[in-house]
Amino acid sequence: MNALSLDTVRLSEDGASLIILDQTLLPGEIRYRELSKAEDIWEAIYALRVRGAPAIGVAAAYGIYLLCAQLDMEDMEAFCTQFRKHKDYLNSARPTAVNLSWALRRMERVLEDERDRLTVAELKERLRREAHAIRDEDIAISRSIGQLGFELLRPGDGILTHCNAGTLATAKYGTALAPVYIALEQGWKDLRVFCDETRPLLQGARLSAFEMQTAGVDATLLCDNMASSIMARGDINIVFVGCDRVAANGDAANKIGTSGVAILARHYGIPFYVCAPSSTIDPAITHGGEIVIEERPPEEVTELWYRQRMAPEGVKVYNPAFDVTDHSLITGIITERGIAYPPFDQAFRRLGLTPDREGSQ
Amino acid sequence: MNALSLDTVRLSEDGASLIILDQTLLPGEIRYRELSKAEDIWEAIYALRVRGAPAIGVAAAYGIYLLCAQLDMEDMEAFCTQFRKHKDYLNSARPTAVNLSWALRRMERVLEDERDRLTVAELKERLRREAHAIRDEDIAISRSIGQLGFELLRPGDGILTHCNAGTLATAKYGTALAPVYIALEQGWKDLRVFCDETRPLLQGARLSAFEMQTAGVDATLLCDNMASSIMARGDINIVFVGCDRVAANGDAANKIGTSGVAILARHYGIPFYVCAPSSTIDPAITHGGEIVIEERPPEEVTELWYRQRMAPEGVKVYNPAFDVTDHSLITGIITERGIAYPPFDQAFRRLGLTPDREGSQ
Repeated sequence: MNALSLDTVRLSEDGASLIILDQTLLPGEIRYRELSKAEDIWEAIYALRVRGAPAIGVAAAYGIYLLCAQLDMEDMEAFCTQFRKHKDYLNSARPTAVNLSWALRRMERVLEDERDRLTVAELKERLRREAHAIRDEDIAISRSIGQLGFELLRPGDGILTHCNAGTLATAKYGTALAPVYIALEQGWKDLRVFCDETRPLLQGARLSAFEMQTAGVDATLLCDNMASSIMARGDINIVFVGCDRVAANGDAANKIGTSGVAILARHYGIPFYVCAPSSTIDPAITHGGEIVIEERPPEEVTELWYRQRMAPEGVKVYNPAFDVTDHSLITGIITERGIAYPPFDQAFRRLGLTPDREGSQ
Repeated sequence: MNALSLDTVRLSEDGASLIILDQTLLPGEIRYRELSKAEDIWEAIYALRVRGAPAIGVAAAYGIYLLCAQLDMEDMEAFCTQFRKHKDYLNSARPTAVNLSWALRRMERVLEDERDRLTVAELKERLRREAHAIRDEDIAISRSIGQLGFELLRPGDGILTHCNAGTLATAKYGTALAPVYIALEQGWKDLRVFCDETRPLLQGARLSAFEMQTAGVDATLLCDNMASSIMARGDINIVFVGCDRVAANGDAANKIGTSGVAILARHYGIPFYVCAPSSTIDPAITHGGEIVIEERPPEEVTELWYRQRMAPEGVKVYNPAFDVTDHSLITGIITERGIAYPPFDQAFRRLGLTPDREGSQ
């Protein structure tokens, strides 16, 4: 079986629709949805049928291409007006998702750069190629992170991961789980992957455990509070997590609970790696304290996934979506350009990920 | 409102039945059950309607008294035979619950000590007094732990607790939450209690958050993986947890996740206290590695509380019920006889909790 048989987001063979794996039905049902109408593409992003920052970007790029390809007009001005209408509409599906607006802006830049020298038909073709490029680059970035992470592994290693930064969150390979897919390609069969269930929304149980099992990996699910116990048993050799945003000093924001895993790993002497596409490294942010953490609705905690109430009515709830892992707890940050080791600010500059400071060499 | 309005386990006014708060219905419904038949008392213990080691012990003591009080015979030999039959039956409800067998043995010892000098009617009265004594002693122990813990608190403190070691787990006050009840008695109104939800069985969400809210305390519920984030915010001044068993060196076994909380508390410089009735300190166990940890069914993790499947079929699950917190991570162990500080083996001897070693002073 192909370990990467799950295709998160792609264009159909005939190029007329966007095909996504509906992640809201996982792990119970594997159902692909073929989308071509604006409302359906918007809804798939809004309702988290496609999720994970890179995967959302790819879906948006194909989405805007498809909607423009359907436009039946020769006039460039009218075409551009329609493009912007569709772009604003898709962008409203998840207004705070950075990759969504990033991918749509990138597609718009093609429009701006090429509109004066191409016909509408040629521009449509150019947009199709740009959407494919966004997907191909995402795959290349994930694959590069996977190869760098793979070189840190030894046969038989136990890997702990938190949340889902796997193939389901990207076009292919993922970030934190990419090293596992590279290992599978190399014929390694004895890695063991331990998935924190990741309350409150259970991405570890629903998505990571599912995709590792589908890939034929020896996967074990545990509650978040069992990580200390499994580390104490000696079952974990390395921790790989994804990230949403990295500050210039290496502080990394990721799914709530990540900082706790980092502290446990430090306590037990286990290497802790953050897998970060260079796009997540934000030189404008000095340290993690500047990253605003979204607080989400209490019902996610009190009613679990299936809306059964487990906590008293009216109880106060603390429900941050992310936390910040201090750079001092991070062994290395794996980007597609290389692994950054502390001090991270210098490493980021060496890898060309942040600009040189004035006066520095 | 009385902060301790929840009466976990008691004898009815007329002395003819055992009244328990049915904890399987919390937090949705507060229903007391009046039990007098052997099958009903057995089922209440078996089905966790009454839970928490001290509360189970009290329920068993009242239970065996009630069943014997119903015996219509004058012959002591026949009475003792019936006693043992009931004792074995109740004891089978949760064979590994130490306090269940401990309380029943203590009641049996009364029988053995007094059978030759009392009538059956007098012995029944003596058993009733012993059951009351078990309850009264449990309350006194909890109250003493509460007072010692209260002296560690400052007004406005934020307290983090894990699982439920509150009044619902004992006859009154609890252990880890007892300091909060003492503070309420003293008129303190500004303590803030943060309850880890405590996966997989959610005792923190269902029981601790519920009893704190019922007591009028400012209570906040959080997922286990949010403890690091709330500590980083500076909201937690002290951690109180209960325990199931303490080794001679201070290693403490408690609900899964406790050791992780201890490591986080150490990282953030927050005092971490284990609240332990002296009965949980086991001098026969040298260190925590000797404590056998029960692994429980995977469905607790994969299907949550209401049996909705959240993880792929067939996935491996790691589901230990407890973990061991290394003594080096524990600030102090609060017993009813005083607070033990490191080195714990010496402190336990000073408090008379473990026997003097040969040659030691």
